Amino acid sequence: MSAAPRHKDGCGCGIDVHAHVIPHDLPRHLGNVVPASWPSMAPAHACHRHVIIAGKVYRTVSERAWSPTRRIEDMDPMGLAVQAISPMPELLSYWMDGAAAAQLLRYMNEQIAEMAALSGGRLVGMGAVPLQDLDLALAELDHAVDKLGFKAIEVGSNINEKPVGAPEFAPFFAACAEKGAAVFVHALKPAGAERLVGPEKLLPALAYPTDVGLAAASVLTSNLIGRLPALKMAFSHGGGTLASLLPRLEQARRVFPDLRDAMPESPSEQARRLFYDTLVFDAPTLRHLVDRFGASQLMIGTDYPFAFHDARPVDSIAAAIADADVRAQLVTHNAARFLGLD
Amino acid sequence: MSAAPRHKDGCGCGIDVHAHVIPHDLPRHLGNVVPASWPSMAPAHACHRHVIIAGKVYRTVSERAWSPTRRIEDMDPMGLAVQAISPMPELLSYWMDGAAAAQLLRYMNEQIAEMAALSGGRLVGMGAVPLQDLDLALAELDHAVDKLGFKAIEVGSNINEKPVGAPEFAPFFAACAEKGAAVFVHALKPAGAERLVGPEKLLPALAYPTDVGLAAASVLTSNLIGRLPALKMAFSHGGGTLASLLPRLEQARRVFPDLRDAMPESPSEQARRLFYDTLVFDAPTLRHLVDRFGASQLMIGTDYPFAFHDARPVDSIAAAIADADVRAQLVTHNAARFLGLD
Repeated sequence: MSAAPRHKDGCGCGIDVHAHVIPHDLPRHLGNVVPASWPSMAPAHACHRHVIIAGKVYRTVSERAWSPTRRIEDMDPMGLAVQAISPMPELLSYWMDGAAAAQLLRYMNEQIAEMAALSGGRLVGMGAVPLQDLDLALAELDHAVDKLGFKAIEVGSNINEKPVGAPEFAPFFAACAEKGAAVFVHALKPAGAERLVGPEKLLPALAYPTDVGLAAASVLTSNLIGRLPALKMAFSHGGGTLASLLPRLEQARRVFPDLRDAMPESPSEQARRLFYDTLVFDAPTLRHLVDRFGASQLMIGTDYPFAFHDARPVDSIAAAIADADVRAQLVTHNAARFLGLD
Repeated sequence: MSAAPRHKDGCGCGIDVHAHVIPHDLPRHLGNVVPASWPSMAPAHACHRHVIIAGKVYRTVSERAWSPTRRIEDMDPMGLAVQAISPMPELLSYWMDGAAAAQLLRYMNEQIAEMAALSGGRLVGMGAVPLQDLDLALAELDHAVDKLGFKAIEVGSNINEKPVGAPEFAPFFAACAEKGAAVFVHALKPAGAERLVGPEKLLPALAYPTDVGLAAASVLTSNLIGRLPALKMAFSHGGGTLASLLPRLEQARRVFPDLRDAMPESPSEQARRLFYDTLVFDAPTLRHLVDRFGASQLMIGTDYPFAFHDARPVDSIAAAIADADVRAQLVTHNAARFLGLD
C-alpha cells in the first residue's frame, strides 16, 4: 500500500476517527429464529452492494465501504495518514437478542481486523460490542482489544433508548478505561425524530446531532467521566448540540442544589476532558468548539464513505484555525493520543 | 408607577420579551367534566401561592408572578423599561379539550391585559391561544389583538408533539403575520426527556433548549418563514440548540436534493429572519449567536420571575458585546421592532 503523501497543508498526517465499514458480505444467522432486523448484502450496480435490513434496502454502498485499497486511494487526497474504521452504526444491533448481536458483531470485528491487517498501518480497527448484554459486551471487548489489537470501540449514542451515561453501562466503560480502549460515541436511532417536518434526510441532519448532544450531556450529569478519569471518550459530529446545551446546564447547576450534588465538577470543565470530532461543516462553529472544549480535544471525523461526509477534512480545519500548533493538534496529535498510536 | 431609571450601561431602556405571569387565582372550569389537568391556585407561605396541576404542586411562586407593582420594582435594577408578559407555558393547555383551554386562556389573557393596564406602559401583553383547535385559536387571536391590544402571542415549541413548523399551524401564523402580531415560541413538554440521566431539573436545563432548537428547525425545513415574510417569530433560550444544528442542516441541503426542494432558501439565511432571546447565560455563546443570526435578531429574555432567570440581562449583554450600537440593538431596538412599540 502507498505511503501517506505530503498534504498541501504540510503533512498528509491526518488521523480520522470517524469512518465506517460495511463488509462485502454479511453472515447468515446461526440459530433457529432469524431476528427480523438481521442484515444482509445483495448485489447492486457495478462496484456497489445493497444493505438489506428488515427486507428493505437500507442503503446502497460502494466498494469504498469494504475495500482497503479503494479506501486508501481516497485517503491520500483527503490528507489522511490513518483512519480508524468502525461499523456502520445501523449494524450495532442493540435491538437484537444479545447472542444474535454478539454473533454479528464478532463477524464485523473480524472483518475490520482483516482490513486493518491488509492496510500497511493506514487503517486502525474500532470494534463494536453487544451493549444490550453487559457480560457479552465485556467478553467482546476483551476479544477486540486483546486478540484483534483494536484501539477503540464504537458505541451508539443510546442503547435501546438509554443514553450512554445511564448507570447500567458504567461497568463497561470502566473496563474500557482499565484496558486503555478508547470509546467513540456515534448517533443512532435518535431522539427528536418526531419533531422533524420534511424529508427523511432530516433524521441524520437534525436528530443525529440532537441525540449526540444529549448523550454527551448524560455522561456529564451522571458524573461518569468524573468517576473514570482514565476513560477516553469521544463524540461524533462535534458533540452534536452539546456546545449549545452546556452554558444552560452550567447555569442550572448554579441555581439548583440537586444538580450540584449530581455533578461535583462543573460540566464545562468535565466537557473539556471528553473528545469530539470536527465534523461540523462550518469554520465559526469549529472555532467555537475549540474555545468551548479545548484545542486538545478535537480530532478529524469524516463519516467516510457516506454521501454526507467531509471529503477535505484537513482543509476544513485549516479554513477555521489560523494557529499552526492548534491545527496540528486537531489534524494529528489529539487522535493519536485518543487512539494510543505512536 | 415609577419611570424607568437610568441604567449603569447608559439607558435603563431594556425590553424583555421573555417573562411569565401566573395569576393570583385561576377560574373554576365551567362545564360538566373538569379536565384532569385543569390548574388551580392554593395558599402557600407569605406572599406565595402554589400552582396545583393534576392534584400536585407543580410550582410555588411569589407575588412577583401576579403583582405588577412588585414586578416593576424588580425591573428597575434589572435595567428594564418594558417587559412583555406571557403565561407560564405549562398553562398553555394544548392537551385539554379546545373549548376548555379557550376558557382558561381567555381568563389568562384578561388577567395579563389588566396587569398591562395597571403598569403605566411598563408591561406589554403577550397572549395565548388554544392552538389544538385552529378556529378557536384564530378567534382568540382576534380578541387578544383587537380587543386587548396585545402585540404578541406566546406559542409552545410543540403542540401535542407537533412542532410549530408542522403544516396544520401555518394558517394561524399567516393570521398573525396579517395582523402584525409577533409570535414568541417557548419550550414546552420537550423531546429528549427520555435521554436525561439525573435530577428532574435537567428537563428545563437540557430538554427545553433541545425542543426549541428542533422547533426552530421545523420552521426552516417547512419553509414557513419563506412563505410568510411578514411574520415576526422569536424563539426562547437563544433558539436552544438551533445554532449547533444549522451548519449541519446547511450541509445536508447541499448534499441531498430533497432538502433543496423543501428549502428554496438556505436555512442559515432563513434563520437570520427569525428572532431569538439572549437567555444563554454565557458571553461567548451570545457572541456566537450574534454572528450566526445577526445583531438585528436578538432581544433580552429573562424568564422572570422563575428561579432559573437572568437577573442582570443588560449586564449579560454588556459582558458579551463591546460594540455600543450592537448592544443597543439587543437591549432595546430589536425588541421594540419585534413588539411593534414606538
